[in-house]
Amino acid sequence: MERETGARDNLTVVALGGNAIIAKGERGTISEQFANVRRTLRPIVALMQQGHNFILTHGNGPQVGNLLVQNELASAEVPDLPLGVLDAMTCGSMGYMIAQCLQNVMIAAGVWRDVVTLPIQVVVDRNDPAMADPSKPIGPFYDRQQAQQLSRERGWIVKEDAGRGWRRYVASPRPIDIIEKDAIASLLDKHYTVVTAGGGGIPVEYDRDGTIEGVDCVIDKDLSSAKLALTVGARRLLIITGVPQVTLNYGSRDQRPLGTVGVTEARSYYDQGQFPAGSMGPKMLAAIEFAAAHRENRVIITDEASLFDAVAGKAGTHIVADQR
Amino acid sequence: MERETGARDNLTVVALGGNAIIAKGERGTISEQFANVRRTLRPIVALMQQGHNFILTHGNGPQVGNLLVQNELASAEVPDLPLGVLDAMTCGSMGYMIAQCLQNVMIAAGVWRDVVTLPIQVVVDRNDPAMADPSKPIGPFYDRQQAQQLSRERGWIVKEDAGRGWRRYVASPRPIDIIEKDAIASLLDKHYTVVTAGGGGIPVEYDRDGTIEGVDCVIDKDLSSAKLALTVGARRLLIITGVPQVTLNYGSRDQRPLGTVGVTEARSYYDQGQFPAGSMGPKMLAAIEFAAAHRENRVIITDEASLFDAVAGKAGTHIVADQR
Repeated sequence: MERETGARDNLTVVALGGNAIIAKGERGTISEQFANVRRTLRPIVALMQQGHNFILTHGNGPQVGNLLVQNELASAEVPDLPLGVLDAMTCGSMGYMIAQCLQNVMIAAGVWRDVVTLPIQVVVDRNDPAMADPSKPIGPFYDRQQAQQLSRERGWIVKEDAGRGWRRYVASPRPIDIIEKDAIASLLDKHYTVVTAGGGGIPVEYDRDGTIEGVDCVIDKDLSSAKLALTVGARRLLIITGVPQVTLNYGSRDQRPLGTVGVTEARSYYDQGQFPAGSMGPKMLAAIEFAAAHRENRVIITDEASLFDAVAGKAGTHIVADQR
Repeated sequence: MERETGARDNLTVVALGGNAIIAKGERGTISEQFANVRRTLRPIVALMQQGHNFILTHGNGPQVGNLLVQNELASAEVPDLPLGVLDAMTCGSMGYMIAQCLQNVMIAAGVWRDVVTLPIQVVVDRNDPAMADPSKPIGPFYDRQQAQQLSRERGWIVKEDAGRGWRRYVASPRPIDIIEKDAIASLLDKHYTVVTAGGGGIPVEYDRDGTIEGVDCVIDKDLSSAKLALTVGARRLLIITGVPQVTLNYGSRDQRPLGTVGVTEARSYYDQGQFPAGSMGPKMLAAIEFAAAHRENRVIITDEASLFDAVAGKAGTHIVADQR
């Protein structure tokens, strides 16, 4: 039987960044978060009306940070939860928020698609070199003494973060596989809009006996989104961030925005160290990998205000396969 | 096209109670929870090997209670989250735990079904009489002064709980509909085992403008499980609790276990007030509603140790349609 058409043929994976959910200067109350998400999703629904289909993914940095603070402040009364379980919590809560906001924007616009939230387990490799080099700061800042105590008591890796204090660092290995990929594909074939891969997904590994086990690390949400897009055969990855375009030579006199670039050119900028590890680096890495995988693949990096125009090719930074 | 056979024809909705996840006397650490869930799921997997299909639902009382304590102790640093969002968190975290434990028990047993976790929005009616009569205690105990202050500051309903202190009470309205029901049906038709309806589902209502909005209440997980079973056409509802059978005349000289009963008889016991509101009451109510809906419907109430025998008809309390 032929696969149903329609669902995947105009399918975009949209990765919602932190700014799309908690805006700068906000405390991040739940009503602020719902309002931001609703606003961000309006152009997405306008694109649905034009025939686009979407998978929505999202970061969870501030939300997991809050859960880590709560775990710590209540640790005398409530047993601690590991990072993977906290990530799963944000998959539930943020997935619910995004799904409901999308449903409400659709209802207001007079359009309807069924929406479903799906927490996923993303497989990583214990032998990934990143596992030995914790690079991702999470949770609150500590002073040196607190940090060293936490390191002794809990085995945490702590590092000083650019003079702002000490933080816990965890590994950020590459996503290898998505355990629930067939379920996502089934739902796409039924024309569902799927909200998934929250915070990059819940990191797991296969143990020697073949069982699945949680891993105390985080997976970059843009790399997971690219892996998901490749897995389900989406041809477009849309990364929503705080700026309308990627900038080259940032902060120098040669500073310029990046429009449309091929993979080879993008990779050379990446290798020059143009994109900082903590912000645009993983986005460009995800973009390069996804765009290199198929001649029709396209990655758009832009902000919420430019999103609609960017999809029409009139704004944003576009990373595409090399044109031969 | 005919519906695929197999998936729903031998389908049971299993509701995991608190004891199946945190055992009596335990602090409820995450490793305790994983170990309990794995143990509870072993007979479920043995039944899968005999050809049974399952939807798994679960309570979340202690887990939401912990989140409420954490929210309160960290409220100076982290913005508060409403009850529906906390429930969605436990759908993510407990859904992940149950799905992964099930996968691992299957791997150990040499059987495989795809498993997926799906947080659901369950519709309630603002005009449900239960909304005006908050009956469900949640979260920690307070002394009178704290309770009255929280009531003033946050508009909470607080009540004294049998001499043990004061608690917040919320409404527990009836589940009317499940927004994601078609997604669950699609996944069942593809032979997925679905983990869903955590804590009774995330309570929502339709606003006057047709949009969906969260409601600050909780839905009984057994009533939601019965609604889900009816919605997807399951013929069996299995409620796992702390006792092997329901008891009549509990604590009196006439005390006796209940074996198999028809709906009319069960309803008469219910109307006599045989089943306490805080424990067996909602389970029997869910059982009566589900069993009354179809002549082949059967509800089994039992504990984890008797589960396997109960499904074979050799243990547990069975509530069935009246035999005419």
